[in-house]
Amino acid sequence: MTTSAAPPAELFERYRDDVDAALRAVFDGLDSPLATMARYQLGWVDADGNPVQANRGKALRPTLCLLTCEALGGDVEAALPAAAGVELLHNFSLVHDDVMDNDRLRRHRPTVWAVWGQAKAIDAGDFMHVLATLSVLRAGTPDDASAARDAVEVLTVGCRRMTEGQYLDMAYEDEDAVTVDDYLRMIDLKTAALIGTSMELGAVFAGNDPAVRAAVRDAGRALGAAFQIRDDFLGIWGDPDATGKSVESDIQKRKKTLPIVHAMTEGAPADRDRLQAALANLDVPPDTAEIVALLERSGSRAYAESLAEEYHAQTRALLSDVPLSAWGGEALGALAAFTARRTV
Amino acid sequence: MTTSAAPPAELFERYRDDVDAALRAVFDGLDSPLATMARYQLGWVDADGNPVQANRGKALRPTLCLLTCEALGGDVEAALPAAAGVELLHNFSLVHDDVMDNDRLRRHRPTVWAVWGQAKAIDAGDFMHVLATLSVLRAGTPDDASAARDAVEVLTVGCRRMTEGQYLDMAYEDEDAVTVDDYLRMIDLKTAALIGTSMELGAVFAGNDPAVRAAVRDAGRALGAAFQIRDDFLGIWGDPDATGKSVESDIQKRKKTLPIVHAMTEGAPADRDRLQAALANLDVPPDTAEIVALLERSGSRAYAESLAEEYHAQTRALLSDVPLSAWGGEALGALAAFTARRTV
Repeated sequence: MTTSAAPPAELFERYRDDVDAALRAVFDGLDSPLATMARYQLGWVDADGNPVQANRGKALRPTLCLLTCEALGGDVEAALPAAAGVELLHNFSLVHDDVMDNDRLRRHRPTVWAVWGQAKAIDAGDFMHVLATLSVLRAGTPDDASAARDAVEVLTVGCRRMTEGQYLDMAYEDEDAVTVDDYLRMIDLKTAALIGTSMELGAVFAGNDPAVRAAVRDAGRALGAAFQIRDDFLGIWGDPDATGKSVESDIQKRKKTLPIVHAMTEGAPADRDRLQAALANLDVPPDTAEIVALLERSGSRAYAESLAEEYHAQTRALLSDVPLSAWGGEALGALAAFTARRTV
Repeated sequence: MTTSAAPPAELFERYRDDVDAALRAVFDGLDSPLATMARYQLGWVDADGNPVQANRGKALRPTLCLLTCEALGGDVEAALPAAAGVELLHNFSLVHDDVMDNDRLRRHRPTVWAVWGQAKAIDAGDFMHVLATLSVLRAGTPDDASAARDAVEVLTVGCRRMTEGQYLDMAYEDEDAVTVDDYLRMIDLKTAALIGTSMELGAVFAGNDPAVRAAVRDAGRALGAAFQIRDDFLGIWGDPDATGKSVESDIQKRKKTLPIVHAMTEGAPADRDRLQAALANLDVPPDTAEIVALLERSGSRAYAESLAEEYHAQTRALLSDVPLSAWGGEALGALAAFTARRTV
């Protein structure tokens, strides 16, 4: 499969300045401490509110939103506040997830709650949830309220799924017998739904056709599943300097990532017992090297890579039915390939 | 001032069944554990999800929303999902506030986090925040998207103010020199803004005139200030059986309620020192009887009562400029009087 579109790095740059401006516009006139906490989460300021050289992430969700919109011949400018909104919603979820998961570090910096305490971090997350909705409300054109209303609904339904996925993720912590199907159901809600939302939002501002919206949403969910599966893979076999994640953290935190769930059900009986015991014994830190070796001989590394490829192929198949421009189809395909195969 | 409108108890009953139906409609098709937690918060089920005889609150916010709408000659049926949305938003804030404030009891029942733990309670609050927005999106009529869009904006701006007020409330815990002005700024954001929002939402579905919206919002903010001041009063001088609040709790928790803030700035120097010491010494529980006596001789009880009356008068003055029906104006006035003088 050839992709003559720009490479992913260029696609991530394509809308970056416009998204940044739309994000900053949401903060116009807001100078409360909660706004400082939100700016910190976005990487714009340090804990004292002083501007820092932003360590800008990829902004995958806004990029997918705007690329989908452009590929469908839509109004990218009208969609910009929606793209900023989905990035804000994603960041709200990170602030709350870090409290719920008790995570002290994110992208090499203390998490919001680690700086301000859990109570204020909960409040700051609620504030960012609000800003996400307010940004999406600015999308569209003044004479047509229906696109903005529909966009808020798309965002909010995606957020509902995300909260349901976060619940499953927490519930699985206490369950021994999590299957690959359970895992896939969880990531479809927790991660993939909002990526489907991002692409559906692009379609809202490109004709707002229900069938097209559903098709790109489903493609986005497949892309999102590949994204999370690859994320799980990189949490074990990635380069910590590139990913910003400690190579040990997912295993040390006994997270039920795809490779672990796979080995728990598909590994040799002795390995399954050993893995079960390592995850159940909270008194002894898991032996990372031993578990990585166990995952590899259980075929879990290869399985994770092939499953990400499967979702990549599914993304492309779903997109092939959508009336995308030639350039747009190739660009989205390139992003889908990147998502499933990335090292960062 | 005479009020020939129905007494408050009848006004609280007027829309109750319709609001209840609109609230329950939001849960159609939702059967996740988060939905059970939300139903528990609303008083519909016990912690196992079994239906209970609902201990229905007053539903002040939906009542104000629909009464404002009806008083302005608006479409009460179109406004119902918005009224349900503001009640859901209020309950989302209670779930998160209980986590932030570490409160284990509400209305004689364990709080959501006390049953399910803090992490899941944060998630359940986020879920209810989502349901609030989704409910408001259903308001209005299918052929006019602008009312639903405007209503979501009104709700979301109100929610932003609420999060800012919650931040101030938490920040004041660590500050010695909180003034009455600080306190009033805090409650205007934390409590009164959403009550203003409730009334503004009613106006959105009654012509959606910007000047009328602003006027009823301001009246609602004054009514909301009276509500919170009376709440603080009842937390010290109310009947615990009637209010569901322990008479000792606000004082034991060293909350900076209006009577405390007033005495801290207006009491005799020796009393101010004594109060300061009682609130600062975390090793010894405050002596409730001593503090109540101190508040009374500082004039703080009378001050709280007179300030609630002042906001009651302000609510009526602001409403007098609004084109309300005769019945509607009297009914809203009756609710304003109830709010400032209630014992429950």
